[in-house]
Amino acid sequence: MEYLLSDRVQTLKPSAIREIFKYAADPTVVSLSAGNPAPEAFPVEAIAEISAKILQENPVGALQYSFTEGYPLLRTAVWDFMKNKYNVGSDNDDIIITSGAQQVMDLFTKTVCNEGDTVICEAPSFIGSLNSFRSYNCRLCGIPVESDGMNLEALEKALQTEKNVRFIYIIANFQNPSGITTSFEKRKAIYDLAVKYNVMILEDNPYGELRISGEDVPCIKSLDTDGIVVYAGSFSKVLSPGMRLGFTIAPKPVLQKMIVCKQGEDVHTNSWAQMVAYKFITEYDFEAHLASLRQIYKKKAEFCMGLLDQYLVPAGITYERIEGGLFIWCKLPENAKMSMNEFCKEAVLNKVCVVPGNAFLTDETEQCSSFRINFSTPTDEQLEKGIKILGKLAAEVL
Amino acid sequence: MEYLLSDRVQTLKPSAIREIFKYAADPTVVSLSAGNPAPEAFPVEAIAEISAKILQENPVGALQYSFTEGYPLLRTAVWDFMKNKYNVGSDNDDIIITSGAQQVMDLFTKTVCNEGDTVICEAPSFIGSLNSFRSYNCRLCGIPVESDGMNLEALEKALQTEKNVRFIYIIANFQNPSGITTSFEKRKAIYDLAVKYNVMILEDNPYGELRISGEDVPCIKSLDTDGIVVYAGSFSKVLSPGMRLGFTIAPKPVLQKMIVCKQGEDVHTNSWAQMVAYKFITEYDFEAHLASLRQIYKKKAEFCMGLLDQYLVPAGITYERIEGGLFIWCKLPENAKMSMNEFCKEAVLNKVCVVPGNAFLTDETEQCSSFRINFSTPTDEQLEKGIKILGKLAAEVL
Repeated sequence: MEYLLSDRVQTLKPSAIREIFKYAADPTVVSLSAGNPAPEAFPVEAIAEISAKILQENPVGALQYSFTEGYPLLRTAVWDFMKNKYNVGSDNDDIIITSGAQQVMDLFTKTVCNEGDTVICEAPSFIGSLNSFRSYNCRLCGIPVESDGMNLEALEKALQTEKNVRFIYIIANFQNPSGITTSFEKRKAIYDLAVKYNVMILEDNPYGELRISGEDVPCIKSLDTDGIVVYAGSFSKVLSPGMRLGFTIAPKPVLQKMIVCKQGEDVHTNSWAQMVAYKFITEYDFEAHLASLRQIYKKKAEFCMGLLDQYLVPAGITYERIEGGLFIWCKLPENAKMSMNEFCKEAVLNKVCVVPGNAFLTDETEQCSSFRINFSTPTDEQLEKGIKILGKLAAEVL
Repeated sequence: MEYLLSDRVQTLKPSAIREIFKYAADPTVVSLSAGNPAPEAFPVEAIAEISAKILQENPVGALQYSFTEGYPLLRTAVWDFMKNKYNVGSDNDDIIITSGAQQVMDLFTKTVCNEGDTVICEAPSFIGSLNSFRSYNCRLCGIPVESDGMNLEALEKALQTEKNVRFIYIIANFQNPSGITTSFEKRKAIYDLAVKYNVMILEDNPYGELRISGEDVPCIKSLDTDGIVVYAGSFSKVLSPGMRLGFTIAPKPVLQKMIVCKQGEDVHTNSWAQMVAYKFITEYDFEAHLASLRQIYKKKAEFCMGLLDQYLVPAGITYERIEGGLFIWCKLPENAKMSMNEFCKEAVLNKVCVVPGNAFLTDETEQCSSFRINFSTPTDEQLEKGIKILGKLAAEVL
């Protein structure tokens, strides 16, 4: 039978990264292609302890239907945390709990974009979000990213010339995949441009707590006196991604519609997970936990950058040092004898898996000379082995 | 600031039931308006036991990112269960785990409907699904439900005259809100009409395991030699709704696109919940658990129907006896002196909350003389108190 599919899914395809995961599943392949938090970063004992307590003290609360907006105590706890620590959230905003931050991308796009509307994003950008925008038939317009954030001239030009731009999507901290952090000056400039051209901003901040050096830069949402910023937060990197917990702090009129959309999507987010997160934030030392995460990631990131300096840089591959997050963006030399895509294929044949950079572009067929590596999932041994192989290969073929 | 919202959410509003819940939150009000499973039906001890075991034996599996399609062992276990017990699923089908059955409605609509396409549904029907279809700007066409299912003439006429019908949505067992079960003859006839007019069927079966009398009727999906039926199953009534677990068994070409949409919506469903469900199905006596649920609901349903016979029927309110599910559909007498909506408002003033039937229609402004009551959530005392009050009110005002 020939199935009639909607226009929006006709060209939608599984993320290129997932295809790469098939190679990565081979146990003889060193995978530097994932984006998983380090398993040693999960507070397993605390979660087991809290979980047992909840299922003993309030099992019906954890197992029964709940509110679409989220567990009220968790909403308040996250609101207070974001307000006190980052000055995020105003009287015009409210907060809801979502099934991962990914659901924020989905609900917000559904709420503000008609099919054919334009979303401006960084180029490169997180493929999961791009696919979410694509699934509502949005046009994507990518703005090249520099070491301090989007190119402002290209951004303003896009705002002037693109039709029906509804929002700018940005990962301002330790961007996935480029690793860069948008400077405070650029955050202000991007906010001002959004106000000037009457578009909203979707600020996605999954890695914000994973800073390993330098100083925190204020969130764009903390500048939001005009009520144009929707902030997406995640528990995936600070608690557990398998629990699928995220949140959004957004202007109430937009949030109201996002709530109705969420009702139709999954009614509400897993109640047990919300209760666990609430107790973990409020009854345990959450800041101490975050500090320990930063130590884990700092050690791994520095180890990885040391290996890159030792094995890849001499072969002409360059990268921008990161201040946090999970990813490093490596660039092939200008005069490379092999294309980035060919290099990534050769790497797989040599049993190392990285993600070709064009997977993160709004148009995957565009030329790109970078690839992404992840240092949080592999062990130190795997990192060393994988980067050594990449270096040897680069010296031979580039 | 004036926010530009998408066309699809302009007219979308929170479910009328949720508005009623505001009254129901008043502890002095007896709520017969919910749709929650009976809390005593949750296998709390087993869940706590399994949960502790998982967090001890395989915490990283429960807490790390997982597959969009779902936990492989759970997919296989549910597939086998559905195949062996109901002959659901063929070589052309596959199964994925979803964040509640609600997500099946969302993903399937997103995959096969363009904005403006038509969905045929029962009238009345489940408001959560209707809102999900509405959220993709689908046109809804309601087919009146008789005591053995949809009126077939009205269905065929709709298939002939409605434009771009993409699927027929049906809850064949103990329908929400009408309580009726579609006969086997009508299931076959509906399937044949769908084949004849080249539309798909979305068979939603959240209450199938809650039969309290009579014999199981084969699922429409079990007749699906043409690969046109998408089956939506739920763990909400047999395990726990707070865990947000559902599944779909659907033709592979459609399912492939639903998976890509799910990636963009929530990446995957809570891993812990999936692992708990897997162990509960395979390591505990699941059939014995289902049998005990049926006992709980049989007792509650019969108690409720006894009260209706005693207090409402003498006042002229009629209802169809149910063979399962959670709801009973009560109809005001033809010559009632008060409209159904007025009666429901009077009931609230008298501290009893039921759901006005028009909330379940494709057009809520349409005339309707029925209301829905739920017997699974209230205690026996609450049921008796509430129905007594309704009877007294009916005798006075109808």
